[in-house]
Amino acid sequence: MSEKKSFVIPFDTKTGRAPESVRKPLERRVSNLSGIFFDNQALETAVSQGNPIVYEFYDMGMPETEGDIAFGTSIVHPGKVGEEFFMTKGHFHTILDTAEVYYCISGHGLMLMESPEGDVEHQEMEPGQAVYVPGRYAHRSINISLKEPLVMFFAFRADAGHDYGTIEEKGFRKLVVDRGGSYEIIDNPNWKES
Amino acid sequence: MSEKKSFVIPFDTKTGRAPESVRKPLERRVSNLSGIFFDNQALETAVSQGNPIVYEFYDMGMPETEGDIAFGTSIVHPGKVGEEFFMTKGHFHTILDTAEVYYCISGHGLMLMESPEGDVEHQEMEPGQAVYVPGRYAHRSINISLKEPLVMFFAFRADAGHDYGTIEEKGFRKLVVDRGGSYEIIDNPNWKES
Repeated sequence: MSEKKSFVIPFDTKTGRAPESVRKPLERRVSNLSGIFFDNQALETAVSQGNPIVYEFYDMGMPETEGDIAFGTSIVHPGKVGEEFFMTKGHFHTILDTAEVYYCISGHGLMLMESPEGDVEHQEMEPGQAVYVPGRYAHRSINISLKEPLVMFFAFRADAGHDYGTIEEKGFRKLVVDRGGSYEIIDNPNWKES
Repeated sequence: MSEKKSFVIPFDTKTGRAPESVRKPLERRVSNLSGIFFDNQALETAVSQGNPIVYEFYDMGMPETEGDIAFGTSIVHPGKVGEEFFMTKGHFHTILDTAEVYYCISGHGLMLMESPEGDVEHQEMEPGQAVYVPGRYAHRSINISLKEPLVMFFAFRADAGHDYGTIEEKGFRKLVVDRGGSYEIIDNPNWKES
């Protein structure tokens, strides 16, 4: 007997949002990202000035089995905390050696990746481009446009799991900062080995 | 040591094509689909009248490991063979219980699915819609527009594999035929149990 059913989910072709009647988004505001951005003072200020949504994602909540595919959209809004662009927390997969793919629907972004050994990679993303994130790499989506949201469709093995703790504790080795119309990737002074 | 590298691949946001310099498409013409369409006489005629491309796909050729994700685009052109719309061969995954997700970039399509036990499902696809194909289901993409290509971004576990043979031998239980502006799903008179 087949127990799982097919389904279709509509995402807005521009905003990436699914109707709330279909799927409720998970939201991360500035206040949820304490310790993620470098500039704590700027973060406190942003919290007190409206505490905007930094990113949201629509995850389908697929069963976490090795044969299933987790997928959905992530939306990183335009903005900065201090010099850093709005971005996701970033995570390793709990099953470390599992890859992920992102298809860029709209906006202009940067995928920042690093392995436990310290190999760092980044890829720019524009509409129609697919970015392959290899297994073993933590990955963070950064909106390097200050004008429009970065909207992406993502897919990965449903049992891969999310390890947010390592990044919350150690940070990424690199920061991506605004340089007035362009970005620069610099060392993270707060990064710690363990 | 991390051995795999990230990469970005650009797909045209309308046609779904990657530049040939980046990736060569795999093409299936009418002559490659003998026995797939019901109307053999119409197929012979189409072959003799230019043998058009029915579909093409850009597969990234990812290593077939269980931690990797295979992805790319598939493009089903508008057209018919007899009463049937242009469509893909369709396949089961070799590791049967592995799912797949399709994000519709442009066009208007139908995903036809069936399990080995004979459960049949279908989902219509329009731009911005993602279709979840559960594990265990053979799946075939059908372009139900006679005007524009059906373009989709797909992702599945890279070691899932493709079993085309079962469908080539038995066919799908259902056919999707043109009814002058709409479609109808009918029994396949040629379908055989084994």
